Amino acid sequence: MSYPEQFQGIAVTDGKDWTHPKKISFPPKKFDDRDVDIEIEACGVCGSDVHCAASHWGPVKDNQVVGHEIIGKVVKVGPKCNTGIKVGDRVGVGAQALACLDCNRCKEDHENYCFGNIWTYGGPTYADGYIPQGGYASHIRVHEHFAIPIPENIPSELAAPLLCGGVTVFAPLLNGGAGPGKKVGIVGIGGIGHMGILFGKAMGAEVYALSRTQSKKADSLKLGADHYIATVEDKNWSETYKDTFDLLVICSSSLSQLDIDELIKTMRIGGRIISICAPEIGEKIVLNPLGLLGVSIENSGIGSRKEILQLLDLVSKKNIKPWVETLQVGEAGVNEAFERMEKGTARYRFTLTGFDKEFK
Amino acid sequence: MSYPEQFQGIAVTDGKDWTHPKKISFPPKKFDDRDVDIEIEACGVCGSDVHCAASHWGPVKDNQVVGHEIIGKVVKVGPKCNTGIKVGDRVGVGAQALACLDCNRCKEDHENYCFGNIWTYGGPTYADGYIPQGGYASHIRVHEHFAIPIPENIPSELAAPLLCGGVTVFAPLLNGGAGPGKKVGIVGIGGIGHMGILFGKAMGAEVYALSRTQSKKADSLKLGADHYIATVEDKNWSETYKDTFDLLVICSSSLSQLDIDELIKTMRIGGRIISICAPEIGEKIVLNPLGLLGVSIENSGIGSRKEILQLLDLVSKKNIKPWVETLQVGEAGVNEAFERMEKGTARYRFTLTGFDKEFK
Repeated sequence: MSYPEQFQGIAVTDGKDWTHPKKISFPPKKFDDRDVDIEIEACGVCGSDVHCAASHWGPVKDNQVVGHEIIGKVVKVGPKCNTGIKVGDRVGVGAQALACLDCNRCKEDHENYCFGNIWTYGGPTYADGYIPQGGYASHIRVHEHFAIPIPENIPSELAAPLLCGGVTVFAPLLNGGAGPGKKVGIVGIGGIGHMGILFGKAMGAEVYALSRTQSKKADSLKLGADHYIATVEDKNWSETYKDTFDLLVICSSSLSQLDIDELIKTMRIGGRIISICAPEIGEKIVLNPLGLLGVSIENSGIGSRKEILQLLDLVSKKNIKPWVETLQVGEAGVNEAFERMEKGTARYRFTLTGFDKEFK
Repeated sequence: MSYPEQFQGIAVTDGKDWTHPKKISFPPKKFDDRDVDIEIEACGVCGSDVHCAASHWGPVKDNQVVGHEIIGKVVKVGPKCNTGIKVGDRVGVGAQALACLDCNRCKEDHENYCFGNIWTYGGPTYADGYIPQGGYASHIRVHEHFAIPIPENIPSELAAPLLCGGVTVFAPLLNGGAGPGKKVGIVGIGGIGHMGILFGKAMGAEVYALSRTQSKKADSLKLGADHYIATVEDKNWSETYKDTFDLLVICSSSLSQLDIDELIKTMRIGGRIISICAPEIGEKIVLNPLGLLGVSIENSGIGSRKEILQLLDLVSKKNIKPWVETLQVGEAGVNEAFERMEKGTARYRFTLTGFDKEFK
């Protein structure tokens, strides 16, 4: 039994052996009037996939399929869809699968902060108890609001990482005012940070790449960074760059290794430090309150449909190319992705492809 | 020996018995080319005066005169003054006595955040080692930039608290966008918070007063607050006011009694929490990083000359009247001020007056 009764996916079947996922079949959620079905053709591998699979955010659910950087073709459209979506469209689904679409936050294009949101996987269940499943799968069924049209000139394997990782760093750049005349630091050069350099430059800002060692220097400059700072190796870097940044976007995977007071010193008055870090449970930010004088700190979480559309438009128009390595989807490919993400050897993002070969 | 060789002041002569200050004479700082001498006629009593005198911010210095909400008449003007200040002008001095006036921060009207600033009392010494002395005194000698003209229609006893406490709450209201259509919460209704209500209303915002109990309700409404929330007594207040505030200004004397995660829930996306709290040494803000989603937190410190001028203009034009109780300056008056500040019975601000009687 396969689509439409059953979807297939590569699932974590044993939380203790999460790096060795297995192929399973699973039933889709109930088809609602504004749902669409998407036949998946590519899915990015996000740090969140590893966090969820490895039980960093609480025990992983049985037979959990992860993946929330999904690109595919629409194969079914609900009777009440009204965004103009149609069968055959190439669309993307990010980390969010539903919101109430009725509260102030939703109405003001902040549906990514809706109190009633449902993540693509790993969060609350649907109202009927269905546990959402992600995009390492043959199909996904999702509300049309979260199925976003992809511009023709962006290849699927490059479009995929934009849907979560990309918009996660784009939203703080956008909302933090990155643009001409602004000095913007990207802290942590990995899957997300490398896109931060690309987008920051495309938006016209002067971009500083900040990483712990010199090891990311060559890549950062190749990606377009104007400056590079090795925060552990460059002694007194925060003194050298005192009163410099308008915006710092923290893309590192953990906050505990950062000296926030040192970052604060490098900020201009009115400057903003925006973290997109989703730390492990229990990790806290501890601030010396007077250290924050004239500088703000905040967290940003993914992005809205509107912001994803803005990002796709920027990437399409400026022909931005994230550095992506493709892997064949399947038990072996997901195993390789998980293991290399753990080791930090991705340069800089994996996209699973070949879905038509794996899921027939 | 008295002015100009010696000034007189009411000083903490014994840190262990700080509530019983004594009258002393002390030499003024060296007169620099852009200094002015001011004969003091009023001085507000700020929470910082108590923090310094009581050694909350490190051991109080011997014979420390506190006070940094100073109003007086200019009696001498340095040969290189160029702001137009002249003998006979009524001016105010706040918490800051000097800045480099040459760095980017100073040039962009953020001299209150200059790395080279010197507080009116209680901070770094002048370059020659002179320990700055505050305004519970006959005179103060200060750089003209920090001697700010007072509009004629503001009585000295009402102008005094504007110079530190007033601008400290005005700057975050101004920079946080308080105005028509904005919902602004003032957290902590005391000497500073009561002015926050007055200014927030004068700026056109919808003002919510937040205090732990109902005890400040009647006063808050009289001051003009549109709403009142007792955060300890009103169960589930943060649920009731979820997604409400554009701006929260935290004016409470300590951060440790606040549930920051609860405050965050009440913020709109893009909302700003600005604390003006100057906590005791070692007090930290501990944040759940995901709690900050879409909401920023920052500290604001006093205000610039430009902001003080803007505040004085607002107070003058809108005829705003802080609630001030005057006390006769002298050993007894300062003792009474310190003890009542400790007990929290000021409603809501003390100004020391009668300087001409005490210092002849």
